[in-house]
Amino acid sequence: MFLKQFVISALVLAFAGPALAQEKAPPALSDAQAKTADRLIDAGLEDDLAWDILESLTTEVGPRLGGSPAEARARDWGVAKLKALGFKNVRIETYEMPYWARVSESAEIISPFPQPLAVTALGRSKATPEGGVTGEVVRFPTLLALQAAPETGFEGKIVFVDEPMARTQDGSGYGTAVAKRSQAAVEAGKRGAVASLIRSAGTDSHRNPHTGGGLRGEGETAVPAAALSNPDADQLARALERAKGPVTVKLNLQVETAESVTSGNVVGEIPGQTDEIIVIGGHLDSWDLGTGAIDDASGIAITTAAAKLVGDLKGKPKRTLRVVMWGAEEVGIYGGKAYADAHKDEIDKHVLAAESDFGAGVVYRFDTRFSEEERPKAKVFEGALRRLAVTPGNNMAFGGADVGGVRDLGVPVVSLRQDGTDYFDLHHTPDDTLDKVDLTELRQNVAAWAAFLYIASELDGDFGRLPVKGDAQ
Amino acid sequence: MFLKQFVISALVLAFAGPALAQEKAPPALSDAQAKTADRLIDAGLEDDLAWDILESLTTEVGPRLGGSPAEARARDWGVAKLKALGFKNVRIETYEMPYWARVSESAEIISPFPQPLAVTALGRSKATPEGGVTGEVVRFPTLLALQAAPETGFEGKIVFVDEPMARTQDGSGYGTAVAKRSQAAVEAGKRGAVASLIRSAGTDSHRNPHTGGGLRGEGETAVPAAALSNPDADQLARALERAKGPVTVKLNLQVETAESVTSGNVVGEIPGQTDEIIVIGGHLDSWDLGTGAIDDASGIAITTAAAKLVGDLKGKPKRTLRVVMWGAEEVGIYGGKAYADAHKDEIDKHVLAAESDFGAGVVYRFDTRFSEEERPKAKVFEGALRRLAVTPGNNMAFGGADVGGVRDLGVPVVSLRQDGTDYFDLHHTPDDTLDKVDLTELRQNVAAWAAFLYIASELDGDFGRLPVKGDAQ
Repeated sequence: MFLKQFVISALVLAFAGPALAQEKAPPALSDAQAKTADRLIDAGLEDDLAWDILESLTTEVGPRLGGSPAEARARDWGVAKLKALGFKNVRIETYEMPYWARVSESAEIISPFPQPLAVTALGRSKATPEGGVTGEVVRFPTLLALQAAPETGFEGKIVFVDEPMARTQDGSGYGTAVAKRSQAAVEAGKRGAVASLIRSAGTDSHRNPHTGGGLRGEGETAVPAAALSNPDADQLARALERAKGPVTVKLNLQVETAESVTSGNVVGEIPGQTDEIIVIGGHLDSWDLGTGAIDDASGIAITTAAAKLVGDLKGKPKRTLRVVMWGAEEVGIYGGKAYADAHKDEIDKHVLAAESDFGAGVVYRFDTRFSEEERPKAKVFEGALRRLAVTPGNNMAFGGADVGGVRDLGVPVVSLRQDGTDYFDLHHTPDDTLDKVDLTELRQNVAAWAAFLYIASELDGDFGRLPVKGDAQ
Repeated sequence: MFLKQFVISALVLAFAGPALAQEKAPPALSDAQAKTADRLIDAGLEDDLAWDILESLTTEVGPRLGGSPAEARARDWGVAKLKALGFKNVRIETYEMPYWARVSESAEIISPFPQPLAVTALGRSKATPEGGVTGEVVRFPTLLALQAAPETGFEGKIVFVDEPMARTQDGSGYGTAVAKRSQAAVEAGKRGAVASLIRSAGTDSHRNPHTGGGLRGEGETAVPAAALSNPDADQLARALERAKGPVTVKLNLQVETAESVTSGNVVGEIPGQTDEIIVIGGHLDSWDLGTGAIDDASGIAITTAAAKLVGDLKGKPKRTLRVVMWGAEEVGIYGGKAYADAHKDEIDKHVLAAESDFGAGVVYRFDTRFSEEERPKAKVFEGALRRLAVTPGNNMAFGGADVGGVRDLGVPVVSLRQDGTDYFDLHHTPDDTLDKVDLTELRQNVAAWAAFLYIASELDGDFGRLPVKGDAQ
């Protein structure tokens, strides 16, 4: 029975394969193209440029908050770097944005167990009154529990949302855990609380709290908001458990804001034989706490080094390779939105877009978002990337926050999915520094991106168009 | 040949064994005693008390710098805890000590790559002038290199000793790495520098610098002294490498001091049938940055829980078990010295002393410092501890910083050597918190200490006396 069934199954498969393929035959690389893709992978695996870019940006600029003078220095750095590497049409495309920065932050248990707590203000948090606010802590195990709580009875209290985050390879634990980052302060404010604390959206156990974008939309009712490091969230939860009465905490957050400052995207190109464009890049800004090595100097380094490898091939690529170092991603995706807005008129020339923005862990999966019709082209990439242990993914690629703007205008995207098992140990903390990046893993990224980029440039035909969405319509 | 040699070797061994033993026959436990030691190990491996003590001290008191109000609260906690557990003669033995505490600390690269650096003041560091000092950084790869440098030419400079630390199981990397902590500021001062920075004496890669005792003796010439976290030391070294000219850093350390404050040791006893005393314990104070879970609430928890297990046996122990929670160890071993001084008159009744002060990693070795004559008694302990995978050690036990005072007065000591492979990832940093302790490892410690303590109490005869040393003579 086993053998007979196997034979039948094999026949069905043998039939089904060609039948599906007939709908749209997957294109193939020529032998010469396949060899070139392979040579690019070889070169990527020995690449030193990405590390040099990464080290240069994180050392010579360091932290670079969106809209800050440090981000302006990063733009100058980016222009000089792209020019030195031989990129063409290197320029800064500016835009205006609101500005927020932390000035100082502290928290302490006042009673019954006086001691400091490690906190960091969440992005766009309001300041507390000078000298801070003091209130009794009310703990909620999850954001859902806070949302389900009555809307009165929390006057003068400090709301503490203690929801933990799951460690996952694909970063999917983040989506759930991060909701409290934007919502806790709003929900607390609605209920008359004076401040909100959250357990960091992070998977580590170090005294480095994770900052990150806070408020969205309903900011009016929000109260000052900070994240506790995971050990400090543990500590506050234990204090609540062990105290015989209320636990009182004092939180002092001071911030500065400006209605409008100038930021910008840094753009450089490897001109192609046609006016078709492939846009790739990373975001240039980082949170202020670390030097943004994994978030996102690695993305800048990987995409720039990969584009340089392709640009160094003999002859022009078929399509223009445009590297963008997007500005002010962390604080509101201002650069990505500005890019889409500035390039609306040439959006039809944008054939494909992709951002590297998930650290420097190995690429383990290749996701696309092509039109259904062009989906079979994914197989060409998948075949070339197989020797790097990259597995085929789905056709629901995110593409990256900064290509969301062009994706919503119909531009297909891909995601070279990176192993993010440890990413949220470091993400948005002081610990996001160069020593956390592994050279071998960084090189595997460069190899994968170089092969991807070459194929995307040379392959006959495009990747279709995506449905135009929302405001972009 | 192989077989013949083996037979001869075996004969030699068979002869040598008894011959050596005849010099001093190792005593043995009675069957009943051996069973009791085993039962204590069983109980230790299921112990919950140590964790409760550890959690209680680190949560309800938190950081507890020697001489501070927090350390005073820790003493009150200790008295309450020992009384609640049924210890007798519970008391605080006070002493006076000088006081030092950090008020604020910051550092930044001013040029050419402006960015903050994570630093912490070293214990007893002088303050910088208000507003900080700024100077060009001169890097030395080791303390030896600084010591070998000329005594002029460093006027106005900031000396940076970048010496790394080796990760070792027994903590032996610390001795070398820590020399710069006390000496860099002195050597820098001699040479006219305005401040000194060291790479943290630690083995981790987090943005949490390691504080620790700084100046000794020659403090007069010392300059303000701080430690950079390992990633920040990396960063400063890279900045020096990549800068085309000088790298300028600003360091701002503000501290407070007092000539004399009151501190104290907390003492509690399980009275024995004789007036002989076995002293064990840990130190109650911690550095101010973390909650001192591994340094040294674990030592307090392990020794108190072990003594309680022995005290709960039917009948009094032969010898009095005295648990001491020594004060102000980190800032100058004030408690240990005060204990030795206060108990000089009954020093002959002190049969044995030991401190647990190396975290909560498993005990893997049993070292003694008995008189040579009594050294064979080590075998009794070794035999009982074997099932816990504790191996026989040497007769050069350190015993612990706080028993140094009584050791120098002739009291034998032991060391239950703990696995410290990860200890210096956390030591003296904000990251020394409860989540870093493993319950199973903590219980193994309690089991080992309970068996040790029982045997030390019941064994016939003492452990000899050690040579009286130094000022103690």
